[in-house]
Amino acid sequence: MIKNDHVIKIYYRDVDQMGIVYYSRYLEYFEEARTELLVSLGLDVPSIEKEGVKLPVVTSHCDYKKGARLEEELRIETFIDKTPKATLLINYKISNNSSGEINVTGYTKHAFIDNESHPIRVPNFIKDKLAKYF
Amino acid sequence: MIKNDHVIKIYYRDVDQMGIVYYSRYLEYFEEARTELLVSLGLDVPSIEKEGVKLPVVTSHCDYKKGARLEEELRIETFIDKTPKATLLINYKISNNSSGEINVTGYTKHAFIDNESHPIRVPNFIKDKLAKYF
Amino acid sequence: MIKNDHVIKIYYRDVDQMGIVYYSRYLEYFEEARTELLVSLGLDVPSIEKEGVKLPVVTSHCDYKKGARLEEELRIETFIDKTPKATLLINYKISNNSSGEINVTGYTKHAFIDNESHPIRVPNFIKDKLAKYF
Amino acid sequence: MIKNDHVIKIYYRDVDQMGIVYYSRYLEYFEEARTELLVSLGLDVPSIEKEGVKLPVVTSHCDYKKGARLEEELRIETFIDKTPKATLLINYKISNNSSGEINVTGYTKHAFIDNESHPIRVPNFIKDKLAKYF
Repeated sequence: MIKNDHVIKIYYRDVDQMGIVYYSRYLEYFEEARTELLVSLGLDVPSIEKEGVKLPVVTSHCDYKKGARLEEELRIETFIDKTPKATLLINYKISNNSSGEINVTGYTKHAFIDNESHPIRVPNFIKDKLAKYF
Repeated sequence: MIKNDHVIKIYYRDVDQMGIVYYSRYLEYFEEARTELLVSLGLDVPSIEKEGVKLPVVTSHCDYKKGARLEEELRIETFIDKTPKATLLINYKISNNSSGEINVTGYTKHAFIDNESHPIRVPNFIKDKLAKYF
Repeated sequence: MIKNDHVIKIYYRDVDQMGIVYYSRYLEYFEEARTELLVSLGLDVPSIEKEGVKLPVVTSHCDYKKGARLEEELRIETFIDKTPKATLLINYKISNNSSGEINVTGYTKHAFIDNESHPIRVPNFIKDKLAKYF
Repeated sequence: MIKNDHVIKIYYRDVDQMGIVYYSRYLEYFEEARTELLVSLGLDVPSIEKEGVKLPVVTSHCDYKKGARLEEELRIETFIDKTPKATLLINYKISNNSSGEINVTGYTKHAFIDNESHPIRVPNFIKDKLAKYF
């Protein structure tokens, strides 16, 4: 398994009229957290794109358990549980960084495409980076 | 079945470095479209909240089929297929308004809560508005 | 003078914990409105970019008069008062579409650059489109 | 003078089709940075609001010097240069955290209002926190 922890803080821009984080913001947090996971593997987005590869999201899913509020710190745990085949599955758990109470869980699924947007197999340079974890 | 169609247009703010709509924006489009569906039923958000009721999202799900591009017009079809029980399920299909090609499908699930954030049964004023469609 | 009117509606995604539109959203509304003004002149963004020209924002300014609330309809009036020289100045007035009460006024200033991001003079195809209004 | 430095990183969500940060995002960065400045003074937003005070933005201004790109780190320097009278003026300078090259400068002006949205004088608890810096 590959795992990364990333902590963020909630600002006014994130919070809606109910006083809780607006539901689409969690997909932005997911993106931030998986970027940091990929960076920790030596797979920052510019490096991946320099190889002519993109990882577009093909599915996103969020289960909202508890609204997060202004100035809370959230821990985003990001997991890759298995070697990608046609797609890469990334799981997320977002919880309050003090209490541990869970706010959101979810996942994203990513395809591998080339510069002409054609689906491709998992590129070797990505496979190599992931191999040692499984 | 309850169904509403809503057309939007894509602007620069929506589009990322790949030249396609950033993935979290679709949840904003879903919100806009379901608001219009609810308005068409006489259930605008301020009216619902005046009754002391909120419909927080408990799940969101998107399947991304094809990236939408700058200045495209998108048709968002919003469906309620069945009477809500504990939760209300709303389905979405987003497609190019000219070609009909599908960009995104997805759904959101909503709980009913009162002002103290306690889960409640489907309120009668909502049941009544939906009843004639099923 | 060139003038365009554009009406938008406020959704949950736009509104913060104070119950009013979050301040950066107005820059998105400005972009939507100036895009529609430019489209009305035959200057949609893809057409401009096809000519190898971009109009990056070099300055933005907003004066916030009155917070706009959920489900309000806002009228965005967009003005070009004078022929662009080095930069194009666009003015905005956002008001409640029923009462006429002003929410926000502001402006954006745009440079003209080529594909290598070098500043260029106002391109002729843009000058021609604007000429008849001044 | 009061000054705070805050570093952020640019993610995909922030970047538009030109490959640079979309112009409204800087107002979100300003908000994040001024929140951290206020926190450093013991003036976090929930504390201020608990006193029945809000600091709505009445003016925002940005000068965009150079587009910031994906995965760049930006340093946001936030300044309060003088004691607030009717309004509080906050200045910002955003630059590349490695090269020091400036991306954006700007300011926001904030009013003081009570819970009924009436303008009020600078509250004493805020004056006291700021006094020692001037």
